[in-house]
Amino acid sequence: MSATNKQWTLIRRPVGDDVDACLRFEEKPKPVVQPGQMLVRTGYLSLDPANRLWMKDEPSYMPPVPLGGPMYGGIIGTVEASAAEGFAPGDLVTGLGGWAEYHLFTPAEVGRVTPVAGVPLSAWMSVLGATGITAYFGLLEVGKPQAGETLVVSAAAGAVGSIVGQIGKIMGCRVIGIAGGAEKCRYLKTRFGFDEAIDYKNEDVAARLAQLAPPRADGGGGVDMYFENVGGEIGNAVIENIALRGRVMLCGLISQYNARERVQGVDLTKILMRRATIEGFLVLDYFPRAAEAVSALSGWIRSGQLVYDVDVRDGIENTLSVFQSLFAPGGGHTGKLMVRIDPGVA
Amino acid sequence: MSATNKQWTLIRRPVGDDVDACLRFEEKPKPVVQPGQMLVRTGYLSLDPANRLWMKDEPSYMPPVPLGGPMYGGIIGTVEASAAEGFAPGDLVTGLGGWAEYHLFTPAEVGRVTPVAGVPLSAWMSVLGATGITAYFGLLEVGKPQAGETLVVSAAAGAVGSIVGQIGKIMGCRVIGIAGGAEKCRYLKTRFGFDEAIDYKNEDVAARLAQLAPPRADGGGGVDMYFENVGGEIGNAVIENIALRGRVMLCGLISQYNARERVQGVDLTKILMRRATIEGFLVLDYFPRAAEAVSALSGWIRSGQLVYDVDVRDGIENTLSVFQSLFAPGGGHTGKLMVRIDPGVA
Repeated sequence: MSATNKQWTLIRRPVGDDVDACLRFEEKPKPVVQPGQMLVRTGYLSLDPANRLWMKDEPSYMPPVPLGGPMYGGIIGTVEASAAEGFAPGDLVTGLGGWAEYHLFTPAEVGRVTPVAGVPLSAWMSVLGATGITAYFGLLEVGKPQAGETLVVSAAAGAVGSIVGQIGKIMGCRVIGIAGGAEKCRYLKTRFGFDEAIDYKNEDVAARLAQLAPPRADGGGGVDMYFENVGGEIGNAVIENIALRGRVMLCGLISQYNARERVQGVDLTKILMRRATIEGFLVLDYFPRAAEAVSALSGWIRSGQLVYDVDVRDGIENTLSVFQSLFAPGGGHTGKLMVRIDPGVA
Repeated sequence: MSATNKQWTLIRRPVGDDVDACLRFEEKPKPVVQPGQMLVRTGYLSLDPANRLWMKDEPSYMPPVPLGGPMYGGIIGTVEASAAEGFAPGDLVTGLGGWAEYHLFTPAEVGRVTPVAGVPLSAWMSVLGATGITAYFGLLEVGKPQAGETLVVSAAAGAVGSIVGQIGKIMGCRVIGIAGGAEKCRYLKTRFGFDEAIDYKNEDVAARLAQLAPPRADGGGGVDMYFENVGGEIGNAVIENIALRGRVMLCGLISQYNARERVQGVDLTKILMRRATIEGFLVLDYFPRAAEAVSALSGWIRSGQLVYDVDVRDGIENTLSVFQSLFAPGGGHTGKLMVRIDPGVA
C-alpha cells in the first residue's frame, strides 16, 4: 500500500491533437477519507473517445474536467477504507473516477458491482458497463430495429460497434460494418457474425454501400438504420444511402473530437428527401435503466449469442499513450480499451 | 380561347444558378382531350423552392421533370373540356400541372376545389394548399410543440414560415423568426405576431439567438424547436443554440438548391450532446390527411388568429423571372408567390 497517489493531471485544455502537452503524470499524497467518504483503489480505468470532449472548456453534457485536478474516466475499483455507511473494505464499486490510483467517493457517486461466477471483472467495464448499455439502448430504443432491416455500423470493430452489430443480428437485421483495414473487416465477419464489412481505408464507402444495400424502388437507399460513431466523410457516405424513413442513431463523432478547424458537417439533403431522422443520444440518460440492459446482455453472453473483446493494458503510466491510440485511424486495438491500474485486481 | 398552349419547356438540367438557360418559353398546339381525360386551363401556378430540385436528374422524392416537356408546378385551374367521368366544364381542380396554359389530367391526378364564400381562390394555392398543409403537419406532427416552448423559424417571412410562426403562437409557444432585412423583421412582428425577429443580413444569428433564447441551466441552448427552411450558415447558427431534446423540423434547404459545389453541412455535435433530433418531412406524405389541416387552418382564418399573404404576379411569360426571385437572398416578395396564368380567373 503506497502513501502516494500517482495520477494524470489536466494542466491545459487541448487544441487539436496536442493532448500530450495537456496532461502531466505526477505523484500526489494519497487522499485521506473524511466522514461519509470511501477511498477506492482503481482496478480498471475505461478509456473512451468521449473523454476527449470532457477536456474541453465548452458546454457539454458534463462539466469540463477542472484544470489542476486528475483527468476523469469510468473506473471499477476496490474500497480500501470507508467512513461511508454501507461500504466496507473489499467492496467493488464503479463510478467516474480519476486517471489515478486512488479516488475519494461518496456513496451517491458509485454503483455497487456484484461479481458473477464465470464473468471476469473487466466485463463490468465493457459489455456490462457503459459500452454495452450504450449499444443496447442506442440500437433498441433509438433505432427501433425490425427484423429484415439493414443496419450499418461505423467503427464496427470498436467496443460499442461490435456489440451493436451482434444485437442487430439477434434482432434479425442484416448487418454491415465499416472498419479500417482488411484484418478488422475479416474479424467483423468471423468473430462477430456481421453479414458484410467495408474497409474504409481501401474501399469507397458510398459505392460499396450502394452495392451491398442497393437503392430501392421507392427512391430511397437501402440503409434502414445507421449507428453513427465517427461522423465526417464516412457519415456522409452512409447518409447518402439512407432508406426512406431511415434512422441515424447518433452515438459519437470521433472523427471530429480532435478537430482544430470547422468540420465538414453532414449534408441533410437525403435526410429531407427520404423523411429520415437523426437522433442524438447519450448513455447517461439510460443509466437508471441499466439493469434491463445488463440482464439482456448477460443472457446473450451465456447463450453464446454475444461475444465481446477487451484490450487490457497494464500500468497507470501508460494511460496517456493508450488513450491516444483510440484516435489513430484504424488504431491497433479491438474491443473495449482499458488500463489495469491495480495489478492485484482480478 | 386560344388554339395554342404557351408553356415553359425544360430543355437542359440546371447546374448552379443557370436556370435561365434551361427553360424555353414556347408555343405548342393546345392538347386534345382523349377518353378518360380532362383539359384544364391553368388559373394559378404555384412557385416553390422545391421546384428547383425537380429539375435535377437525381433521385428525389419525385421523378425528375422530363427534358423536352413543360416544367411542373402546383396549379389550380378550370376544366375547359372533359371526357372524364364526374368532371364537367367549369369545375375547379388542383394538381401538379405544367408551367403552361393548359394541361391534360385524369381524375386520379387532381383534387376537386370547392370554393367557399369569402375565401379567394388563391387561398387554395397558399394557406389552404400545400403551403399551409406543410406548415400545419410539419409543426404539429414533427415538432410536437408544447406551450411555453421556444420555436425558431427560418425564412420566416416566407409563405410556409409565416404560417408556422402563427400556428406556434396559437399553440402557446414563444416564436422567433429569422428573415432578411429590417423591413421583413418588422413585418414578422406587426403582421404575424412573432415575439422576436432576427435580421440575418445585419445581425449575427447565433449571437442574437443566444440573447433571445439564452442557454439553460441544464447545459442546453434555449431553442426547443427549429423549423428549418434554409440550411447552411443559418441552420448551423440555430442548431448551435438547440435545447436539450430539441427538435429540428427539416422542411427545406433553400440555400443549397442552387449549389454547384459541396455544401457546408450541419455540425452534429450539439445534436449529439443535447440528445436532439433532426427529422425530414415532406408534405406529400400528409396529403391524405389534408382535410384535417384545411379544417383547422380555415377555422383560424375565420377567427382572425391566422393571416396570410399572397403575392400574385400576372402573365405566364413572367414565370421564370418570378421563380428566380424566390432564390434572391431576402428577395422582394412576402407570402406565397404565384403566377396568375388565366387573367379571367377569380
